[in-house]
Amino acid sequence: MAASMVVVLLMLLVCPLRAQQYPDCANGPLSNNSVCDTSLPAKERARALIDAMTVQEKLNLTHNNSPGVRRLGLPPYNWWGEALHGVAAAPGVQFASSGNWSYATSFPQPISMASSFDDDLFYAIGTVISTEARAFNNANRSGLDYWTPNINPFRDPRWGRGQETPGEDTYLVKRYIDTIVTSMQGGRNPKSYKIIATCKHYTAYDLEGWEGNTRYGFDAIVNPQDLSEYYMQPFQQCARDTKVASIMCSYNAINGVPACANSYTIQSVLRGHWNWTADENYITSDCTAIQNMFTDHRAFDTRQQTVAAALNAGVDVDCGYYNPTFLPSAYSMGLVEESILDRSLLRLYSGLVKAGYFDPPESPWRSVGWANVSTPEAEDLALKVAAEGIVLLKNDGTLPLAPTDRNMTLLLAGGWINATTQLQGNYAGPARTLISPWMALQNVSNVNLVVVKWFENPTLRAIEAQADAILWIDSTTEGADEGQDRNTIRWDAMQVDAVQTLATLGRPLVVAHMGEQVDDSALLNNPNVSALVWAGYPGMMGGQALINIITGKSVPAGRLPITQYPAHYVHQVPMTDMSLRPNPQTGNPGRTYKWFDNATVEFGYGLHYTNFSTVINTPPNSSFDIQALVSACDFATYGHVDQCPFHASGTRSSSLSVNVTNSGSTGSDFITLAFISGEYGPEPRPLKSLVAYQRVFGIQPGDSQVASLNLTLGSLSRYDESGNQILYPGSYRLLIDVPTQTQWDFVLTGSEYMMDEWPQM
Amino acid sequence: MAASMVVVLLMLLVCPLRAQQYPDCANGPLSNNSVCDTSLPAKERARALIDAMTVQEKLNLTHNNSPGVRRLGLPPYNWWGEALHGVAAAPGVQFASSGNWSYATSFPQPISMASSFDDDLFYAIGTVISTEARAFNNANRSGLDYWTPNINPFRDPRWGRGQETPGEDTYLVKRYIDTIVTSMQGGRNPKSYKIIATCKHYTAYDLEGWEGNTRYGFDAIVNPQDLSEYYMQPFQQCARDTKVASIMCSYNAINGVPACANSYTIQSVLRGHWNWTADENYITSDCTAIQNMFTDHRAFDTRQQTVAAALNAGVDVDCGYYNPTFLPSAYSMGLVEESILDRSLLRLYSGLVKAGYFDPPESPWRSVGWANVSTPEAEDLALKVAAEGIVLLKNDGTLPLAPTDRNMTLLLAGGWINATTQLQGNYAGPARTLISPWMALQNVSNVNLVVVKWFENPTLRAIEAQADAILWIDSTTEGADEGQDRNTIRWDAMQVDAVQTLATLGRPLVVAHMGEQVDDSALLNNPNVSALVWAGYPGMMGGQALINIITGKSVPAGRLPITQYPAHYVHQVPMTDMSLRPNPQTGNPGRTYKWFDNATVEFGYGLHYTNFSTVINTPPNSSFDIQALVSACDFATYGHVDQCPFHASGTRSSSLSVNVTNSGSTGSDFITLAFISGEYGPEPRPLKSLVAYQRVFGIQPGDSQVASLNLTLGSLSRYDESGNQILYPGSYRLLIDVPTQTQWDFVLTGSEYMMDEWPQM
Repeated sequence: MAASMVVVLLMLLVCPLRAQQYPDCANGPLSNNSVCDTSLPAKERARALIDAMTVQEKLNLTHNNSPGVRRLGLPPYNWWGEALHGVAAAPGVQFASSGNWSYATSFPQPISMASSFDDDLFYAIGTVISTEARAFNNANRSGLDYWTPNINPFRDPRWGRGQETPGEDTYLVKRYIDTIVTSMQGGRNPKSYKIIATCKHYTAYDLEGWEGNTRYGFDAIVNPQDLSEYYMQPFQQCARDTKVASIMCSYNAINGVPACANSYTIQSVLRGHWNWTADENYITSDCTAIQNMFTDHRAFDTRQQTVAAALNAGVDVDCGYYNPTFLPSAYSMGLVEESILDRSLLRLYSGLVKAGYFDPPESPWRSVGWANVSTPEAEDLALKVAAEGIVLLKNDGTLPLAPTDRNMTLLLAGGWINATTQLQGNYAGPARTLISPWMALQNVSNVNLVVVKWFENPTLRAIEAQADAILWIDSTTEGADEGQDRNTIRWDAMQVDAVQTLATLGRPLVVAHMGEQVDDSALLNNPNVSALVWAGYPGMMGGQALINIITGKSVPAGRLPITQYPAHYVHQVPMTDMSLRPNPQTGNPGRTYKWFDNATVEFGYGLHYTNFSTVINTPPNSSFDIQALVSACDFATYGHVDQCPFHASGTRSSSLSVNVTNSGSTGSDFITLAFISGEYGPEPRPLKSLVAYQRVFGIQPGDSQVASLNLTLGSLSRYDESGNQILYPGSYRLLIDVPTQTQWDFVLTGSEYMMDEWPQM
Repeated sequence: MAASMVVVLLMLLVCPLRAQQYPDCANGPLSNNSVCDTSLPAKERARALIDAMTVQEKLNLTHNNSPGVRRLGLPPYNWWGEALHGVAAAPGVQFASSGNWSYATSFPQPISMASSFDDDLFYAIGTVISTEARAFNNANRSGLDYWTPNINPFRDPRWGRGQETPGEDTYLVKRYIDTIVTSMQGGRNPKSYKIIATCKHYTAYDLEGWEGNTRYGFDAIVNPQDLSEYYMQPFQQCARDTKVASIMCSYNAINGVPACANSYTIQSVLRGHWNWTADENYITSDCTAIQNMFTDHRAFDTRQQTVAAALNAGVDVDCGYYNPTFLPSAYSMGLVEESILDRSLLRLYSGLVKAGYFDPPESPWRSVGWANVSTPEAEDLALKVAAEGIVLLKNDGTLPLAPTDRNMTLLLAGGWINATTQLQGNYAGPARTLISPWMALQNVSNVNLVVVKWFENPTLRAIEAQADAILWIDSTTEGADEGQDRNTIRWDAMQVDAVQTLATLGRPLVVAHMGEQVDDSALLNNPNVSALVWAGYPGMMGGQALINIITGKSVPAGRLPITQYPAHYVHQVPMTDMSLRPNPQTGNPGRTYKWFDNATVEFGYGLHYTNFSTVINTPPNSSFDIQALVSACDFATYGHVDQCPFHASGTRSSSLSVNVTNSGSTGSDFITLAFISGEYGPEPRPLKSLVAYQRVFGIQPGDSQVASLNLTLGSLSRYDESGNQILYPGSYRLLIDVPTQTQWDFVLTGSEYMMDEWPQM
């Protein structure tokens, strides 16, 4: 979220930021205000606080770095916290420079979390992060608002922030949201928020800087079908189903209207169609996004009109300086009503009330402290997440490299051998320790390490003489980052050359591909590259997790949460083309595994150190009447028909089960992936769509376990050109695993059923 | 030079690099080798060393990180030093982590040196840098080879390394080369080299990474005219005239042939036409450039052919690992002769012999030490360079801001208020101190500073209440850097917006434009922006120099060494188009002030705190016969006819003099710029060309001084389409100052004279 501009501007904060203090409800001026009366409803308490303010005071409170109201005893408060994969530094989060409070648990990036396909893990991560966030808050080092997670689906492999997201598939993204937001907020519909989470960036945001287009002024042209079925699905999960407390509007425009003044997306869809109307449901702008509506989108003639448009559209916080600077004059000009200001403040302070900000310190979560931060259990979890997320893409039997009865000389090469902070990726907080691969290898017995100081001393002869095996650990040097997208999805020619040169030695050669996904063809196609793992951004314990996999102490079972595209893909479709479906007119070959059929490595791919076979427990029926399915839905329980279970097997326990058998000789987890394809709904039709997954743990050689796949009626739906979600009669096929191992065909009969009528712009 | 890849690779050097030790000529094995016999000629000494080597030993010695030959007592040596604007860290230069040897004087970047137009300053800088380099060498912390300066002319405002160069004009670039290389090498034709300088990057190199084109594989298509008159001119100065010891070949190809295997540029032009054939004249590749001929240019079928091609073409050092890895097998295959290896080693070791590497420690320069590094005098020089290089682009009388009888409240805003390392730019070494503008302002009396923590706390009301004046110090956030060119030459819309907002307050508003040159139109055209200075990368004392100018303690007299292009320029010509002249077919509007007539701010522009008038002391004659001019040339003294003086005034002292009068009320330096334009030579004809300059110092109000302009016959020449340098009959006009203040018309008569017949490819 923070622009490079933000980074620069933050550098000049010569004075320390204000600490995040709790208000004094016992003795201060607020003690006589009902906001401190815990017996009253939250909204009533917030209303009492706002009623005590003058309009001039109110005008100061709609930006991220709120000065509070000293007269009333309301302290300054910074709404801007970050905690994408651990509590992270932000204007509203202060780390100490050393000692206590100088670090927090740093998990893998969401792209690497996602490759674990492990919902329980996502939930556990959110629990740790929010506990540590509460500890920082109790130490007056943070607020209760954290602008995380980043849930824009990873549409294009060039995107500079794809690493922050759980990948390209909306089903997986939605599972991630439901688990991590729920655990961060302290449970489903919590009485009191543990922390206030923020789904960002609303919406159709996934371009940073590409061939002169910048995120600050980009206008994303999206048709209703793509908008409803893809770009909006994560936000529907957040707002309608998981009930996230807060949402951030994005820099870009959607079909000509900037996101932070877009009444269609904000009013019609978010607050209207999805009924995201809890008292505390506030929207913040991305940082500078309100200013960008004036400077980059040029959507308004004056700065006052700009701030008024955002506030009137329902954007309650300006991360930036436009509101404090121009809202007073906008108000004087009559562009903003006091009631609209009140609406925003009511949302903001209702949230704080519900997070216990005005409660006595015996309220929930006020007792956690430094002892609860970066605990051994939390760091073990960081290691477990990293190991579960590593994906094995190629193996000729070289892996695991298990040195046993004699010393093995392992040559280490590549730019990430001793990577530490690089393992974290962006939006990382400081960690207690960062275990690089090289550090992790120090503790492996029977291995002699030789570091190939490539560029400085190697000769092939020397390497050949020493090597029992070679481990190359690297990432592409053209990194995408916040503010900049990639130009290529190739490895550097020089990196490929180095690997190819090492590959001529005839020694086992293992490549660990770190960081961004790029085209691995040159490594996959080289028969002398023995094995390839993708470890992404594995976090503070990432080097240990990688070496555990390499040496067989852990076993790989992760799957790609994104398509690995061929390098020439970037020449086939510009980043600015938001459409998902192939288009012969524009040359767009399609986006994501649902529409692009020429991947270098498919979404969902991943090998093991063993082999698995899967058998679907075929349901008794293979024909289902749409109207019968719908009428069996218990709307009162599920709220929305797409959420109702599809009891394919006729039982109430799960939709469908799959027997998974380990037919090899090494115990291993297995991620059971279930897709649906078929002849139903409008053309073109997706190649397939992920509808369920379950990670099954520790299946021993020769053993079997049962994976339960929870399909819903939504799993069977499609979206028409207007974005309506519909159940269509037709022929369906359930596909297990990547590549498909087994399948089950069924049909839906009856007539179309409109599950969700999409609001039109 | 260092690729981003290099940076990554260097990070994995877990072991410290070898120290740079002198050979033991007194007691070691070398004591019996003639290389240590100081009575012999250098080449003979180098030959004796090489004669003692086996071919296998020789094969190890042609890369930057030479292992030496332990058997012979020849120590390891790393040829790769850096010292662009001060001794800088490099594989061959080791700084201590603290205390002695942990820093060196850090001058402004060459682009900011160049704007001083002060040859004596360039010379003084080179003297300090080479003295400090010798001190590091004596401490075994560096070698004697420094791969500096970077002298590719700054052709396109997007170039990621333009800051490393003295700008776009070949005459200015050549003056910079002649002064700084000569002082670094210890004088003209020194008996012993102080240090060995390296002109880079040979040639037509000025693209890093732009819309998918990378420097590693870019093929620069250059016609003979542009090549001869522009891209090659700096190298002609280096090789033919200043006699630099060493040259670096570049990453790119020139007209299809990679620079490091290009027999036309290396053999025909450099060693042939320019006779760059001193014993010690070696060529190094840019780092990885030999590898890139295989991986990116794909110019050869095998790696062995690649290394052989470079060595055979006359590239003596591989900065990279290709030579040590593949040269032995190339030799076994018969692709390289031992005599060619010997040729390279003879050059390399002749240079070290001439730098005293094999001499006893009483030889010149062996006594300088830490006391000679970052001395007060050197740091004063850094301050002086920075002040002389600052360019005043606009001033309504607000500057200087001189607080006198009462306290002034100065509001500071912008991303570079407290800039420290940013002031240095790239290829900077660590400095003893880095004075930011904010730090410098602490010592200005009668000024209250208020830092506008933009984004965090401002409101216009608060600023207005406090401000007597506002100082905005910033750089564009899209920075070009090594490896990446700029996409835009605009200020960010958000930055312009911030300045425009401050400008509405009606308080004096001064903008200090730091870093890269970009289009300042929005600032120049806004009547409420009171003053604008461009301070570039002003080095360790940069903040002090800037504040001295702002407050009038120093006065500005710098001039732009580059054209400030309008923002839309980047859409008119792609970076990949190397041609200089306007071309209606391609839409290229022309490059540099010689060919582009629509600058936002012209090359050579710069204001003062006073006014100057200039009067040319008109020569008695205004007609000159070409044959008479040539026959009056003393070839024995000048070597090349283009170097012969053009005695326009008929005297021997200088070509022409100009009376410069300070007609204002503040004493100031004045840079007398002399251009020639006219109707002569082939069309199209340049708008004008810089032919001489002299900075005149400290002209007091009402006083006059005389500037001497040393024109040569080369000043009058043009280049034809084949690249031949020719004196043409025609009408000439000498123009003084920017914009032109005064002029003198003259004619050349007689017939064309071929000054230099350009070798054809």
